[in-house]
Amino acid sequence: MTLTLKEIAELVEGSIEGDPSKSIHGIGALDSANSNQICYAVSEKYKDSLKNSNAGAFIAYSILTHKFKVIQDINNFNYDHQFNYPDSSVAANSAIGKNVNIGKSSTIGVNCVIEDNVSIGSNSIIEPNVTILRGCQIGNNCVISPGAIIGSEGFGNARNSDKKWNTIAHLGNVSIGNNVSIGANTTIDRGSISDTEIHDGVKIDNLIHIAHNVIIGEDTAIAAKTGIAGTTIIGKRCMIGGAVGIVDHLKITDDVIINATSTVNRDITNPGTYTGFVPLMHHSEWKKVGIWLTKLDKIATFMKIKLKNIR
Amino acid sequence: MTLTLKEIAELVEGSIEGDPSKSIHGIGALDSANSNQICYAVSEKYKDSLKNSNAGAFIAYSILTHKFKVIQDINNFNYDHQFNYPDSSVAANSAIGKNVNIGKSSTIGVNCVIEDNVSIGSNSIIEPNVTILRGCQIGNNCVISPGAIIGSEGFGNARNSDKKWNTIAHLGNVSIGNNVSIGANTTIDRGSISDTEIHDGVKIDNLIHIAHNVIIGEDTAIAAKTGIAGTTIIGKRCMIGGAVGIVDHLKITDDVIINATSTVNRDITNPGTYTGFVPLMHHSEWKKVGIWLTKLDKIATFMKIKLKNIR
Amino acid sequence: MTLTLKEIAELVEGSIEGDPSKSIHGIGALDSANSNQICYAVSEKYKDSLKNSNAGAFIAYSILTHKFKVIQDINNFNYDHQFNYPDSSVAANSAIGKNVNIGKSSTIGVNCVIEDNVSIGSNSIIEPNVTILRGCQIGNNCVISPGAIIGSEGFGNARNSDKKWNTIAHLGNVSIGNNVSIGANTTIDRGSISDTEIHDGVKIDNLIHIAHNVIIGEDTAIAAKTGIAGTTIIGKRCMIGGAVGIVDHLKITDDVIINATSTVNRDITNPGTYTGFVPLMHHSEWKKVGIWLTKLDKIATFMKIKLKNIR
Repeated sequence: MTLTLKEIAELVEGSIEGDPSKSIHGIGALDSANSNQICYAVSEKYKDSLKNSNAGAFIAYSILTHKFKVIQDINNFNYDHQFNYPDSSVAANSAIGKNVNIGKSSTIGVNCVIEDNVSIGSNSIIEPNVTILRGCQIGNNCVISPGAIIGSEGFGNARNSDKKWNTIAHLGNVSIGNNVSIGANTTIDRGSISDTEIHDGVKIDNLIHIAHNVIIGEDTAIAAKTGIAGTTIIGKRCMIGGAVGIVDHLKITDDVIINATSTVNRDITNPGTYTGFVPLMHHSEWKKVGIWLTKLDKIATFMKIKLKNIR
Repeated sequence: MTLTLKEIAELVEGSIEGDPSKSIHGIGALDSANSNQICYAVSEKYKDSLKNSNAGAFIAYSILTHKFKVIQDINNFNYDHQFNYPDSSVAANSAIGKNVNIGKSSTIGVNCVIEDNVSIGSNSIIEPNVTILRGCQIGNNCVISPGAIIGSEGFGNARNSDKKWNTIAHLGNVSIGNNVSIGANTTIDRGSISDTEIHDGVKIDNLIHIAHNVIIGEDTAIAAKTGIAGTTIIGKRCMIGGAVGIVDHLKITDDVIINATSTVNRDITNPGTYTGFVPLMHHSEWKKVGIWLTKLDKIATFMKIKLKNIR
Repeated sequence: MTLTLKEIAELVEGSIEGDPSKSIHGIGALDSANSNQICYAVSEKYKDSLKNSNAGAFIAYSILTHKFKVIQDINNFNYDHQFNYPDSSVAANSAIGKNVNIGKSSTIGVNCVIEDNVSIGSNSIIEPNVTILRGCQIGNNCVISPGAIIGSEGFGNARNSDKKWNTIAHLGNVSIGNNVSIGANTTIDRGSISDTEIHDGVKIDNLIHIAHNVIIGEDTAIAAKTGIAGTTIIGKRCMIGGAVGIVDHLKITDDVIINATSTVNRDITNPGTYTGFVPLMHHSEWKKVGIWLTKLDKIATFMKIKLKNIR
């Protein structure tokens, strides 16, 4: 297949920046394409990949104009013009409350709910079906993925003498810094008095739960399905694997790595890599091992081993 | 900062109940504010906290009128007038099916989907982006948080002789009692023949999965990211920690506490506190320990320890 | 209670196929009803159960006409007429992008977002509040449950020398085969270059996370709350329990069963059943056992046991 840029532009119903007669022989990936191939650049997030690519041309898409553009020379390409929008853009069916501030060039996707007194910075993308509840703040250059809930009520309940639950007031908000991404169907609860805080540069994957009053330090990344219980504070530049459970009221220092599916049941005061899970076994093997897993203290007693002997 | 109630009311574009010249020196929390401070009361849930608060004034918000009210004397304050709505209120973009009953003073948030034959009691709050599927029942004084799915199809599949899956009919519904709260993005599946049941006073956190035919007893609380497999029955007044996994067809008695991230792999017939996970270690330490975790039965054999010896 | 088919049809405001004077004495379940009972059939999925049922009559519901039909003789019942729709049906408030193909008899529920260049086969049901992002493909006879997100951005981030994260381009899509069901609030990320692939006949439960570039083989079933990290390949006819964590870049062969809450931390090259978790204990017992769980290598050293001795 060989097409000229002109033919490609017609195909995608877009405009051209470059030589319309330039020939293209196929589609490539940003990092491996050669000068006869064309790449597809879907958002401003790929700006750096575009710069380093050897591709002969690029197809970019403007959310503002809903048009494609075929670009030959990436060095002369005006990113700002292409990817930034002169004003915020709010899609159909989205409900925007009162006193909501949406910064320049930010977009709100279809079917979003943005409640009263929410503030969203500039260049942020709120994807479809997102719910941002009253009073929460989102910084600049953030991406909130579909289905995420920002500012759900914290799970604070106090038992009365009849063992019935009374819900505790959650009057804080969620405060999200700049350059943060939040994954699909992730939930972040509002704080009880002060805010739940997600600091600059934090990357949060899908289906993560962040409870009330949690604070996550700059440039920490958290993989999918992890849960962080209330009032836990996580340092800067941590990397937390998938499906990790972190209990409440802990402090985790900077530069900590937690491997996937571990339970964090204590403070971590030193940087480093931490793990804790049962390795996978054949089920027949596990059935024999499992019973001993619950008898370790008794094995030690039987063998007359004391903890002080083996430290 | 000192403001009069009149100035505060102007600030929030609300009305006043009390002395407009009363001075306020700051904002406080419900439980710690003094008589010179004002508090913010966001919903009827905080009625009790309001009564016990020493704050000099309160800001309340009426979902009905979308207006604030500044209140000086909480004892003369007519909660019913403020927090209850004369009729159910259904927000924009919500889709309500046929034969849906919504009780007095209940509200349906933006972008909700309420399918045919759903019944919702009085004083319940259905937050934005909630989906309640055909035939499910919600009681009085409930809160269903954003993104929750009530009545999704149970995961019942039967393999045929070709090892293909046939989906099993789920003809039951979900039945939710009074004073129940359901967290953000939580999913509750409908029963196969009878209903999945969530009894009065149950509090369920975010991102929880409750499978078909599960029954959860009165006043049980379940923290985020827990999953409960099909047909398991949980007693009254249990407290189940975050990210707990409970397998199917179990019975858990009343007044049981399960600590976070435990796996419940058997019936629990006695009240008490239960736990089971691997404590966190340095990864270098875990690598040495992990291999022995899978060899415990062989250690026992080598040491000539028998289970009967150590009980 | 005894009602004639005519009376039942009036009750549900539906039409009749059969003898209007036939008497019905109660409601039954598809698999246990006798010839004096009536059953309720909610969707085409129950076609097989209907055929094998001994019930005296059936109530079916047409999504197309929003009317019930009371049917006496299931053998003469024209499924195609009842359950199939002459054309695709798109519900209110759903947003459909450009170049979207929706096959014959497929339905799009309320408040769905279907982005540009999505393709959906025939006879598929997209339930309410689903988000299918740009370019993803859904086959025939699929069910996508409420709140599911198909095609969210993969969690690919590369650290620069300042320990800041750069987001990596995800230019692939999600490709879903025929006869697949996806559970409520489940998230499936798009691939980085190639597609994330869900093959024919796969059944995926609620709140599951499937990361970028994962491939899931034919007729595999995955229970709720499981997470599968990036680029892992899972074989055919596997059964993966609830809340399982599977790390990235693994290969799992065909016909593997993983029990609930296990961590899969290595390739699985042989079919069979696999497990790994700590059995539940009384908390007082676990506190004594837990400390030894982290000292197993030291116990072995103290007892002069070597791995080679016990294999």
